[in-house]
Parts: sequence; C-alpha cells; structure tokens
Amino acid sequence: MIFKRIKSNGIAHNSYLIGARNEVAVIDPRRDCQIYIDTAQNEGLKIKYIFETHRNEDYVVGSLELKNETGAEIFHGPGLNWKYGNTLSDGQLFRIGSLNLKAIHTPGHTDESMSYVITDLSTGNSPIMVFTGDSLFVRAVGRTDLYGEKEERRLASNLYDGIFNKLLLLGDGVIICPAHGGGSVCGANIAVRDESTLGIEKIQNPLLNFASKNDFINFKLEEKLEKPYYFTQMEKYNLEGPPILGYLPLPAPLIAREFKEQIEKGAIIIDTNEPFAFGGSHIKGAYSIWSDGLSPFAGWILSYGQPVLLVLDNPGRLDATVRDLIRLGFDNIKGYLKGGIDSWNNAGFPMERSGMLSVQALKSMFDRHEEFFLLDVRGQGEWDSGYVEGARHIYVGHLEREIAEIPQGKMVVVYCSTGHRSGLGTSILLRAGFNNVYNLLGGITAWAAAGFPIVEH
Amino acid sequence: MIFKRIKSNGIAHNSYLIGARNEVAVIDPRRDCQIYIDTAQNEGLKIKYIFETHRNEDYVVGSLELKNETGAEIFHGPGLNWKYGNTLSDGQLFRIGSLNLKAIHTPGHTDESMSYVITDLSTGNSPIMVFTGDSLFVRAVGRTDLYGEKEERRLASNLYDGIFNKLLLLGDGVIICPAHGGGSVCGANIAVRDESTLGIEKIQNPLLNFASKNDFINFKLEEKLEKPYYFTQMEKYNLEGPPILGYLPLPAPLIAREFKEQIEKGAIIIDTNEPFAFGGSHIKGAYSIWSDGLSPFAGWILSYGQPVLLVLDNPGRLDATVRDLIRLGFDNIKGYLKGGIDSWNNAGFPMERSGMLSVQALKSMFDRHEEFFLLDVRGQGEWDSGYVEGARHIYVGHLEREIAEIPQGKMVVVYCSTGHRSGLGTSILLRAGFNNVYNLLGGITAWAAAGFPIVEH
Amino acid sequence: MIFKRIKSNGIAHNSYLIGARNEVAVIDPRRDCQIYIDTAQNEGLKIKYIFETHRNEDYVVGSLELKNETGAEIFHGPGLNWKYGNTLSDGQLFRIGSLNLKAIHTPGHTDESMSYVITDLSTGNSPIMVFTGDSLFVRAVGRTDLYGEKEERRLASNLYDGIFNKLLLLGDGVIICPAHGGGSVCGANIAVRDESTLGIEKIQNPLLNFASKNDFINFKLEEKLEKPYYFTQMEKYNLEGPPILGYLPLPAPLIAREFKEQIEKGAIIIDTNEPFAFGGSHIKGAYSIWSDGLSPFAGWILSYGQPVLLVLDNPGRLDATVRDLIRLGFDNIKGYLKGGIDSWNNAGFPMERSGMLSVQALKSMFDRHEEFFLLDVRGQGEWDSGYVEGARHIYVGHLEREIAEIPQGKMVVVYCSTGHRSGLGTSILLRAGFNNVYNLLGGITAWAAAGFPIVEH
Amino acid sequence: MIFKRIKSNGIAHNSYLIGARNEVAVIDPRRDCQIYIDTAQNEGLKIKYIFETHRNEDYVVGSLELKNETGAEIFHGPGLNWKYGNTLSDGQLFRIGSLNLKAIHTPGHTDESMSYVITDLSTGNSPIMVFTGDSLFVRAVGRTDLYGEKEERRLASNLYDGIFNKLLLLGDGVIICPAHGGGSVCGANIAVRDESTLGIEKIQNPLLNFASKNDFINFKLEEKLEKPYYFTQMEKYNLEGPPILGYLPLPAPLIAREFKEQIEKGAIIIDTNEPFAFGGSHIKGAYSIWSDGLSPFAGWILSYGQPVLLVLDNPGRLDATVRDLIRLGFDNIKGYLKGGIDSWNNAGFPMERSGMLSVQALKSMFDRHEEFFLLDVRGQGEWDSGYVEGARHIYVGHLEREIAEIPQGKMVVVYCSTGHRSGLGTSILLRAGFNNVYNLLGGITAWAAAGFPIVEH
Repeated sequence: MIFKRIKSNGIAHNSYLIGARNEVAVIDPRRDCQIYIDTAQNEGLKIKYIFETHRNEDYVVGSLELKNETGAEIFHGPGLNWKYGNTLSDGQLFRIGSLNLKAIHTPGHTDESMSYVITDLSTGNSPIMVFTGDSLFVRAVGRTDLYGEKEERRLASNLYDGIFNKLLLLGDGVIICPAHGGGSVCGANIAVRDESTLGIEKIQNPLLNFASKNDFINFKLEEKLEKPYYFTQMEKYNLEGPPILGYLPLPAPLIAREFKEQIEKGAIIIDTNEPFAFGGSHIKGAYSIWSDGLSPFAGWILSYGQPVLLVLDNPGRLDATVRDLIRLGFDNIKGYLKGGIDSWNNAGFPMERSGMLSVQALKSMFDRHEEFFLLDVRGQGEWDSGYVEGARHIYVGHLEREIAEIPQGKMVVVYCSTGHRSGLGTSILLRAGFNNVYNLLGGITAWAAAGFPIVEH
Repeated sequence: MIFKRIKSNGIAHNSYLIGARNEVAVIDPRRDCQIYIDTAQNEGLKIKYIFETHRNEDYVVGSLELKNETGAEIFHGPGLNWKYGNTLSDGQLFRIGSLNLKAIHTPGHTDESMSYVITDLSTGNSPIMVFTGDSLFVRAVGRTDLYGEKEERRLASNLYDGIFNKLLLLGDGVIICPAHGGGSVCGANIAVRDESTLGIEKIQNPLLNFASKNDFINFKLEEKLEKPYYFTQMEKYNLEGPPILGYLPLPAPLIAREFKEQIEKGAIIIDTNEPFAFGGSHIKGAYSIWSDGLSPFAGWILSYGQPVLLVLDNPGRLDATVRDLIRLGFDNIKGYLKGGIDSWNNAGFPMERSGMLSVQALKSMFDRHEEFFLLDVRGQGEWDSGYVEGARHIYVGHLEREIAEIPQGKMVVVYCSTGHRSGLGTSILLRAGFNNVYNLLGGITAWAAAGFPIVEH
Repeated sequence: MIFKRIKSNGIAHNSYLIGARNEVAVIDPRRDCQIYIDTAQNEGLKIKYIFETHRNEDYVVGSLELKNETGAEIFHGPGLNWKYGNTLSDGQLFRIGSLNLKAIHTPGHTDESMSYVITDLSTGNSPIMVFTGDSLFVRAVGRTDLYGEKEERRLASNLYDGIFNKLLLLGDGVIICPAHGGGSVCGANIAVRDESTLGIEKIQNPLLNFASKNDFINFKLEEKLEKPYYFTQMEKYNLEGPPILGYLPLPAPLIAREFKEQIEKGAIIIDTNEPFAFGGSHIKGAYSIWSDGLSPFAGWILSYGQPVLLVLDNPGRLDATVRDLIRLGFDNIKGYLKGGIDSWNNAGFPMERSGMLSVQALKSMFDRHEEFFLLDVRGQGEWDSGYVEGARHIYVGHLEREIAEIPQGKMVVVYCSTGHRSGLGTSILLRAGFNNVYNLLGGITAWAAAGFPIVEH
Repeated sequence: MIFKRIKSNGIAHNSYLIGARNEVAVIDPRRDCQIYIDTAQNEGLKIKYIFETHRNEDYVVGSLELKNETGAEIFHGPGLNWKYGNTLSDGQLFRIGSLNLKAIHTPGHTDESMSYVITDLSTGNSPIMVFTGDSLFVRAVGRTDLYGEKEERRLASNLYDGIFNKLLLLGDGVIICPAHGGGSVCGANIAVRDESTLGIEKIQNPLLNFASKNDFINFKLEEKLEKPYYFTQMEKYNLEGPPILGYLPLPAPLIAREFKEQIEKGAIIIDTNEPFAFGGSHIKGAYSIWSDGLSPFAGWILSYGQPVLLVLDNPGRLDATVRDLIRLGFDNIKGYLKGGIDSWNNAGFPMERSGMLSVQALKSMFDRHEEFFLLDVRGQGEWDSGYVEGARHIYVGHLEREIAEIPQGKMVVVYCSTGHRSGLGTSILLRAGFNNVYNLLGGITAWAAAGFPIVEH
C-alpha cells in the first residue's frame, strides 16, 4: 500500500495519495497538482481516481487541473449541481489495486460532504483508515456556520450524526486523515499533530466529549469564526470548475524602476517581510502580509483579477509565494522587486517607515498616562478571552471596511497576538492616510509574558 | 509534533524521528545516520535522545554514530552488558518538547526488547503511538528463535505477555510503529503496509487471533526462519558498539583493467544485475546478487573485512549499494566496474554466460523425460507449502556449505520463487565449478501462473 | 553575467542561457523547456529572447513551447519561410541587460544558419563568446550533406567562408559555444570536451588546418554520415512549428497482463536493457535499443504517432526515456512494463532469448571453420577504417529495409563497435523471423583488444 | 573531459574539478569539501590530486579535509615550510586520465603562487586552460600588498613577470580559471563574469594595458585595499594545516529563553537580517551583519574560538551561514534563535531598535542645518572617489578600534555605499553605548541616485 500525506502549508491543507499495486487515487488535490503526478510516476502508479471530500470554500480545488493532465475521473458528494465530475451515492465502492474505497455521506460541514473509508484487502476486511474531509479533524470538527445562521443548527446536528453514527462506528483503531491541520480557517483550534485515530479522538477531542448532542450543537452555535471575503468566489469556482492554470504564473523579476512603473499602473503591492522589517522600511501603499499570513489574509484584501506586485522577504520564497496566491485563485501576479527593498532604497526612491513599540514601551505609555487609541485586530474568539485595557476591537479582516471607526489625528497603537496581523492592520491604516500608527511587536503574547495585565470580560 | 518514518529499504527497517518544539528523539537509527541530522536541522530540531528498541541482529545499529555527531544520549533495554549508552528501567519517562515518552519492557523477541509509548501533552494524557520494535509488526510478530531452540518457548511466552498484557492495554486507537516492514528477515510475512494501530492488529493480525496463549506459542515453535550467518557478528557489534564509520566508503570507479587487477588480488565480486542479465554476461567468479537482494543475502555470502568489488546494474545505484552493504557491516568496498559489464566486454576480457530456462522450456524437458537435477533454493517455509515435482531442497543461504549434495556432471536447474535467489544459487554453483547450470526465470511463480502443477507435501 | 550550458545527453545537444541583470536569452531551447524557466526564475531572470541557430533536423526545437509559457520572442535566420517567430538580418543587434548580442549569418551547415556574438559591455567592447550552432564544433565542423549531393559543394564552401571570414575574425580569445557535443549525429567526431575558444580550434581542429579551402571542401565531400529517416519530419516540424507538448507524456505503469494487452493492440515495444540483458530474456517482437541509443536510433525505427511500449532497464530511467523520445517527436508513449522483464517472466508469459558470443568464441568458430554469416552494422566511415574478415556491411539504420540481403537458414553473427547497435540489429533480425542470430558482445573493440586481426580495405 | 567550477559565494571563491576518464583533480578546495566528493562520485571519478594555487589568507583551505576523506595527494608551491602535502617544482607534470597538468610558478600575489596549465591530449598538445589562482582574475590581478609595504614593489614586479612572461605566452585562446570572482577581498574590482581567456584579458583587463611595467607597478603601489584582521590567523592555519572539521557544526535551535541564557554566558550575537530589519527590531548587543556580509566582515569582528549565536534572516539560511563562518575558521557556533526575532519579541524580552534615515530625510537635515556627526565607513578607495559633504571617514573594519574618534552625545549618521556596512557600523556604535545613531538606508548610492551632491577630493 502506498499512502502519502501532501501538506500545503499556508492553507494548512492535507491531500492524500492512496493506492496499491499500480493504481492510486488522490483525495482533495490542490491546484498546483504536479506533486501528485510526480509522486505517482516515481512510485510507478497511475492516478485512477480523484475524490473530493466536499466543495471547499478556502482554496481552489485541483481536481479539474489534475484530470486535465492525467485523465483521472473526479467524484464528489451528492446534492450540488456540479458542472464537472461524477456525483457519488452513499456507500459507493471503488477498487484501487488491492484496496477498497467506500464513499460515505457525512454532511454537516456542508451538505455534500463525504468521507472515504479504506480497506486493505491484502490484510483483512475491516477498515484501516478514513478520509474525513472537514467533518472530523484532530482535536476539532468542521465549522458549521458557512450556510449562515439559519442553517447552522441543522448542519451541526448532521455533523454530530455523521461523526457519531457513521465515522465512530468504523472502530477505534481506524486512522483518520482530515483535510486540514493546525492553522486552517476551516475549523477552530485544530491540533498541529497529523497522526490520529478514531480511538484517540474519542478520548481527546473535546468536541466528541460533550454530555449530549444538544451540548455539541449549542457549542457549535456559539462558535465565532471569521469568514474571509474570498470564500464566496471559491464556492462558485469549485462548483462550476475553476479556471485551468496549467503552468504556474511566472512573476517577472522587476528592477526598482520597472517596479515603480507597475505601481503607477495601479497594481497592489504585497510586502511579505516580517512586520518588524516592514516597519523598518517599505514602499508607500504596500500591504504588510508576512509569508505565513498570505494564505489566511490575502483573501480578505485582494480581489480577483487585480494585478499584484510582490516585495519578498527573501527571493527563495518566490515559488512558495506564487503557490500560496494561486491556491486562493489570485493568478495575476505581475512581478516582484528584484533585490528586495534594498534595491528600492538604493535607487533613491522614497521609502516609508512605520512606528513599532515594544510591550515595555506601551506599558510606559500607560504609566505616563499618554493618550492614544489602542486597536485590537484579533479574531472575535481571541478578543473574548481577554484583552489589554482600553483597547477597541476590530478584526483585521474587517478593518478596511470599518476604517471610519478609527479616530483621526491621534496616535494609534495596533496589536494582535504576536505583531503579525497588527502589522497588516498598521499597513491598512497607513494606506488610509493615518500617519501616527504603531505596531506592538510581540503583541498580547509578549504583553502577558512580560507580566502585564490582561483584562477579562 | 513532528513524526517521520525513515525507511531503509533493503533491510526493510523503520526508524523514526519523534519530537515537538525544538527537540526530537530518534528511535533505532541506522548507521548511515546523516538523514536524521539533516531532517532535524531542516525542521529546527535538536536531537536529544536516541532510543534502541533492542540490540538488533540484522543490521549495524547507528546509535554510536549518531551520538558521535550530535552528542545525543543513547538508551537501551535492561539485562545486557552494554558497552555504551544508558540502560533503561521499565516505566522510565522522558520529556521531548511537549511530548512524553515512556519506556516499557516488552521482552520476547529478545530479552532486552523495549517499546516506547508517546503521549502528546498538548492534546491529552492518553497514549498516541507506540514504537514496538521487533515485538509487534503489521500483521506479524517478532521471531522468537534467535536464542536457539531451548529458549524459544520462554521467549514466545514473554512475547505473548508483552503484547497482550502491555501493548494492547494501551488502547485500540494507539498507532503502532514497528522496527520493520514487509520483506524483513526479522519476522515472517510482515505486511507491506506501514500504517496500523493496536485496534487494527487485534482484528487483522493472525498472530493475535489464536484461541489461546498456548496456540500462539506452539505456532511460534513451529515457525521456520532462516538465520543468516552474519547475525552472530551483528549481535557482537551491537552489544559492544560497532566501529564508527564517519563518511560513507568511496568505492573507486575502476576501469576494466584496474578491476581485473583487484580481482587477481583476491577481492570478491558481487554482480547486482538482474539474474537474466547476469545470465547473459558476467565475470567468472562473480556472485549474482540483484540489488534488492543485497540486504537479505550479502550476509550469507560475505565475511567481515573481505574486500568487495561491485558490478552494478546501473551506476546510479552506487550510493544505495554502498549503504546496503555498510548497514550490514561490510565496509571494505574496493571499487566498482566503471561502465559496467559492457566495459569488461569491450576490453576483450573473457566473459562467462550461464544457462537460463523459461518455465515452458522446463515443462518440455519434463515432457521429453530429459534427465536433470532440479534444485529448489527457497526457504523452508516456502518449500513446505509446495514445490515442483522431483526437486531437491537446499536453502540458497546454505548452498555453499552443502555444495557436496549437488551431483557432478549432470545438468542442474535451479529455481526459487521468481528467479532471483536461484540466480544467486546458479552463481554459487558456477563458482564451485559446475558448468551445466540453468536458472529458471520466473521461478515457481511463473510455473504456477503458466498452469503447471505444484506438488503439495 | 549569467551563462549556463544546458546539455541534453541523448542528442548531445547544447542549449544556453545567457543574460545579465534581470534579463536572459535562450539559445536553441529543447522541447522539454521547463529547465530554462526554472533556471531563469531561480536566478531572478526574465526570459526575453529565444534565438535559434538554425532549423535543426535532429530534434524538435523548443522555441514555440518556451514562447508559449514565457512570452519570449523567437528569432531565426533568413531565407526560410518560417511559420512562427521573427527572421533576423545579418548583423542585427540585441540588448540583454548589460550584454550585447549580435546575430551574424554563417550559412553552410544549412542556408539559414546563424551565429550569435556576445559582448559584455560591463568589461569592454570586444567579443567574449560566440554561439556557433552547427557551424563550428569543438574539433569538428557541421555536416554539409543535408541538402543532398548537388548542394554539398556550395554548402561546404559557405561553411568555410563563415568560419574563416566571420567567426575566426572575432579573435582567438573568444569562447565558442556550439549546439552539439561529442556523440551528436550532426557532425563527425566532435570532441567530448565542451570548453574551447577560437584560438584553440585554430590550432587543434583538423578541419581548420587544411592547406586550402579546396582541401576543406574535398574532405567534406568525401565525408560519409548517416541521415536518420526522421530528419525529414523534423525539418518540416521545425519550419512550421512543432506541436505544443505542454506537460510531458505520462506513460502508464502497466502490469504484465496489461502490457500484453497493449502489445496485442499493435504497439511497438522498445526494450532499453543493455544488449547482454536483452539477450538473456526479452519479449518477442521487442526492439533492443539500449538507453543511450534511444536518441540516435529511435528515429530510424519508429514512425510518428505510432504507439510505443517501453521495457526499461531501470524504473528510474522513465523520465529520461520519455524525454529522449519526445525530443525526437515520438509522443505517443502508451506505457511501460512495471517491474520490468522480471514481472513478465513471473507472470509465466513466454519469453524469448537470443544468442550472444564473446570474441573468443567467435575466434574459435573461425578457427574451427564453422559456417556462419557475419554482419557488420556500423556506419560507413567505421566500416571503411577496417572490419573483421568475411563480414558483410549493412548499416543498422538500413537493416530493416535491406533485410532481404540476409541469408535464410544460416547462423548470423552481428557485430558493431561494442555490441549495442548489433543488439539492435539482432532484434531486427529476430522480428523478421531469423532465429539463429548471435550478437558479438564487445564488438570489434573487444575483438581488437583481444589481439584478433582487423582487415583493412 | 570533465570541468566544473564550484563557486563559494560569500568569499567569492572558485574551486575546480578537472579530470578525464575515471580520474580527477581538485584545484583549491574549500573546507566544506563534500561537494567535490559527491560530484566525483556522481561522475564516476576518483579524486587523485589536490592542487593549491597558493597558501590563501582569506579562507581556510580544504586540502587536508579532502585528503582525509579521499586519500588524494596535496601539492603546493615552493618556498614555504609547509607542514603537510608535497612541494612542487616549476614545470612539474601530472597525468589525469587523458589530460596533462603542468605546474608553473607565478609568484607575485604571494611568493609560492602557482598556476596550473591543462592540455587535453585527446585533442592536441597545446594548452586549453590555465588555473591562475590569485595571479590573474577576470579584469583584475591579485593584490600585492600582503607582505607589507617593503615587499610590495618586488611582489608587483614578480606578478607582472608571471603574467606577461609566463601566462600570456600560453596563447590567446587559453581559458583562464581564477581562484576568485567579483566581490572577493583578494583583488580590486574583479569582474562578475566568470568566463574569460588570456586573449580577452589582454584586450579588456586594464591592469594588462599599462604603457610599461613601471606603470603597472606604480598603480599597484597606490592601490589601497583593506586587510581583515583574521588574515593573520588564516596564513598560519593554511601553512600548518588547519584543524580537521569533519561534519559541519550543528548549531542548536534555541528557543528565546535558551538563547538568552547563552547570551548571558557571553556568546557574541550575529544578526543576519537586512539592515532595515535590524533597525526595526533586534537584540541589544547584536552585531548587524547581513547574510552576504558574513564572509567579508565576520573576520573583522569575531575572534577564533569565541562562541557565536545567530539571529537568522530566514531559517533556510542556516546551512549557508554555517558554511560562511567555518570557511573563515569560526567553528564555535553555539546555536540560533528558533523562530527568529519574532520569537524573542513574543517572549516579552526587551528589544532594541535603531534609527534609520532615507536620503531625502538626510537632505532635509542638511537643508535645516541640523547638527549631527556624519560617518562614512566605506573603504579607502571608495572614500577617495567622493563623499557626502561634512562626512568623517573611518573604515567599518576599524571602527571598533577607533571608536574614540566618535563624539559622544551627538546624533550620529552612518553611511556606506548602500546601507549594509553602515548597518554594521551602527551596531558597533550601539554596542559601544551610543544611542542616537542612524543608518542611512540606500547609502551614497541612493544619495547620488536622488540627485544630491557628491564631494570630490
């Protein structure tokens, strides 16, 4: 048996190759799908099937792309008006070499969500592993809020049933293979460990340890998760079939003068330097989205088709950065600044800097009763669990639309958990014309670590 | 949590990196240990501990080598007079970042055999995975015959107790990480799949499904496994601490004339071409051990310190071939024939060819009542399950010592399951001066597939 | 300045990346062109121009493929009715970062042949290197026979003029970058060394050291080079624009039964094992073309569009084998035999073997006055320089069309220089129904090395 | 023939593999020498000889290290009391496969400097390439100031003679292979292009185009090059045989708390972030040496044996950073800050920031007649060619020893060509207790590009 977990870091996405003999299936392929083809070729395997666990809203699915290159057949769950691939029925069986794959319908995260159970006929007839998509994660379950408030109770109820009446019945020993790992926007507090089983989840997953189904549902109804703006586009893409990408985009290496010309034509600048470096020197108008923040935050900021320019934290990250963007559907990447921000500075072009504060400095400001506006840009759940006294909360994803809430003419200090999302927040404020803006480096994490007080609600 | 399975194909050996935060432990490192160091460095991890599940008899353990480069501490099981590292006590606990590792004594395969149980404190207090060494494999258990017949009942009883009274009590959901996969000489019929759990094994492992402990023991007592000659040296090496290798040996690329000079100085030739290619053309005196056969069979043929010369099936396999040999302790690899057997032939040096038969040709020989000696060189267990009429059985590992059993002056046809071990057998006979020797290509597998009769005992 | 020589081994083809700052040009790209794109991206370079030195007849040019992915502009020499790209004029200048590239017309190999002279303006105004295409090689010059006998004198004269009146005038210190290295079918006896200059060639290249232009022309007129059948298709392809390949073909890994089915549907089998292994065991009907022989010989054997099946010498060669074939335009590669010839044998399917001889054995046959037909399949030039007594000469490329020349019912011994082309010859004879065919391993090289006599004409 | 140029970027060092058939020599190996061994193995070559062009003062030579692993013989030039290897005589010949290598004595850069001339006997008897060490570079020649002022005239005279009376006599077509490329501290203004010939140098190298030998010598006597402090240690190391390194050091990944503990024990911190990022946030006491600055500047700052801690600009640079340091002999690398400066900030530990200025801001300061101390830390030659009005010059390498020259209590603005060396200068001032220090981002390059005035001497 061959089993490979392919992790796509930014979106914390897991896809899988599962096969035996000379055949293999891919579960939930990503858009930059050459990795499945290369792996299959290296192992002497033919990609026979592509299974989607659900439509997905957080990334462009790679099924069509992979089918286009390999001819493999695509299968999805029932109930949606798919414009491509085949619709499965609950219980449908497939043979992949000496393996059996059984598709089981486990709605809840979405109505068409499927799980796929693997039996290895060379060792027995009981299940070995199950691909759980966004139904069951390690130490978490899928979010149930994507259809809006009205539908959430129904979805949470379905999710509970799918987990308790279908998945857990497979047996404690069955290995689980979810579609996301720690850091995904598709679930709350997914563990960073990838290896788990139904038996481990039964014991350790807090969501599977409520006293009743009702408690589970109520917990889910109270869960507050952000829904990035690009989800809407994703859902459409993945239902109708996203555009075929073919080769990865090739952003041009632009020298400072060429980069400036592209800015003047209206392209959006994303600067992937760490916030403290962005604060040190950046190009006016740039958004500060550190490398690991591209996947969760580019979708709040960018629009489809909009030309993008990159200032990279290091040139070796170009490929990863392009992949992060195209996985979200942002394909129009014009170029990147060759030589980075140094080359901009060396050209004598004007640079912008922005304020940064240590937690000690912020404490002194409090102690000296200085006046400033303190902005917390973390998620609702984080805010709910405690904050720095005097702070006002606006989630970073909403900041651009709610910019009117920020007072003009006052020093603004932005914080989040560590200084990254607040870096983005800072850049949004700078773009909006605020010029007395400070990012709290280390964020509330540093604040607490330094022994300064957290206010509980 | 970081978890990596490092597979060493030839010896079908699994070693593991397990860690969290900035620390990691290595379980059962192999001798060419740079892979652990590179992996750890790439992931930002410091190798803190090295755990051996047992002394090992089939490969040179890499603990000292790895400690030598990293400074990590070595731990082994109790009861042996180790000349290096620390001896564990049953139940001893270790902390690796946010993980707990608990050493539990599970004798049976050997007296000092240990298992290591992992708890991920970031998700709960119940066990997640267990490193089972040679105690419990996927669909098999460790061999219990290494101390000789007298001790086997005791060992089998201990093994049963360790599995049933210690390992299985950890819970069905616990993932198992054995020291070997399919193809290892350390167990019988290990499955080729790597992923399993205690729950899956409880259902699918035939060794865990006997009616009683007695049945388990009796089954083990009747098991017939070959014990390669080099095991004895291995046991000594691994107890006292094997020689530090440092860099991998660098076999010289020898042109035909230089290769010939080395042969004349007495080096042993190993030809790793496939048997049908070896039959087509080879150097007189060479052993035919196809690439995948090096790990299981070099230890029957080679002596320690003996200079070895290689004829490679392809030059890209040099590195893998060197690793296969040094993992068994055969470090004196003089060189390889640059350009392969072609270059030997081009030099006008005498080549040797050897006979090959298809199963159809063998069938005709039977039908025509031709006279020949039919030699089955498979293992005892395979022989016991059926053979070709008229065959005489000598295991290939013993053939060189039992060569007197082969009649002189008669056509000899050698077979095994597929033609590989019989290729080695053929080369042993050629070296011994037999010159009318034929290898049955495809072996008894092809014989059966072609519909010809198998004799049952 | 960035300068990279990209070697494509089979066709002994050199292509080049040459650039500076953030721009680069590609000279004579091959069809599997991702390597230029990856290299350029890694170095922070934009591919701006593609220059062809000439139409090429031995491989599918990659210009359109590369333009398709990058948008770079294509340039070729004058005088042909190109269906794509731009036609250059003699002396046309281009700027690539701080480099100047000057196109100079150097007909002779073909009428539209161009050379490209590089000046590095950051160090001076004199030329640094020249891309000579198929005009001037290391220790050789381009062939002048491609337009047929009538045109050869004119071409040879032009070639002489281009070399002596254009290239050599650039200065002895100028580095030469030809389109082919040792082993190419586009020139006779090209040296295996890649590094040379005009100054070195003036001294060491025998073609530049004739007493007169007339001597040069006469030497060229007497040169005998084979012209593979596929050249004609290539010329058409490269004039009109070859089909866009996109991704590399993905031959399916076929198990023996599936492979057999494809054979029965009429696909051609290419077995890339070395001749001695092919002789040991192969599938009836297969052509024997060893890996390094694919580029020079597949074009004599295969037709365009014909489905091809592969038996590989090792699975790691799949990618290289696919590239070798598509570079010649053979894109319809159905699959390969997973597990190689072993798996065929294990399935109990009938295998074929073929005769092989050592030179010592052949000598004995002569000494014993045995009767056999001795066939020399080397090129005309090799045959002209000496042969084994009694041999008949038919070039391997023509053997299939001239098969009627081989006597029926007689033992046939085939030889070439080392046993490779004679392996192909052997397989052609087997396919034609001859069944008493022997390949002389080591060929005339071994024959001479063993001290046996060569007949001079 | 095999010819490979192995570039070591930081020290702008070129080493070479040159060989044929199954043998190869290495010219001027670096200390992390596995690359030669791997390359040789991959190509089927045995490393037979190691040739040093001279003792070298800027990096630890890798000859002993390479000999230790491969057994190859070492050769150096005459006149020094070498403690290892063999001393050559002028004109000594070596055979490497089908190549000839001739050692010729070309003193000048140092007294024992050698060049090595290659002839490819398979193509002729005239030279093909010459390894020129630090005698002749592309568009430059070696420095002649290493023995002090008294010896410089003699050395410059010798260098001239070696170039004009030995090297240039080899012929214009001969390819030159120097020991350094652009950016090396071993020559002034070496071109960034690697490819050149004696013919090209004769035309384009300004050092070879003086009217007389006297002019050449006078130019050399006026040349002002800095000599880093570590050169003295290097010379001793390379004469006596540097310590064998074996494996590369493995700096531990330290979490913030562990990193802090190491600082408190007295280790030196090197922060390899770009200056603008260093300015944004760094640990108090750290030296700012950007990644590409490690090779030229670590040797001015660090002492041998001193424990070093790293703050990396990105974790992917760990390996390259370690190599940069050990090539200079700085082997005691304790660890690096896992998670970078973010993790320090998140721990709530105090961070330091430092001032940065744009050239526009500096211009305003001038225009507003603000008072500040302007420090130019460039090299003497750069200073001599123009500066910003009012600046005081102290070379960055000497700043720590000449810190008393900087006025206390005044704003200090530091500049260099682009902001990198001035970043190091800034960090030196911060360490010395100055707290009103500004780095001019973009440096005098940006100043000039923005159209602000440069003062000529």
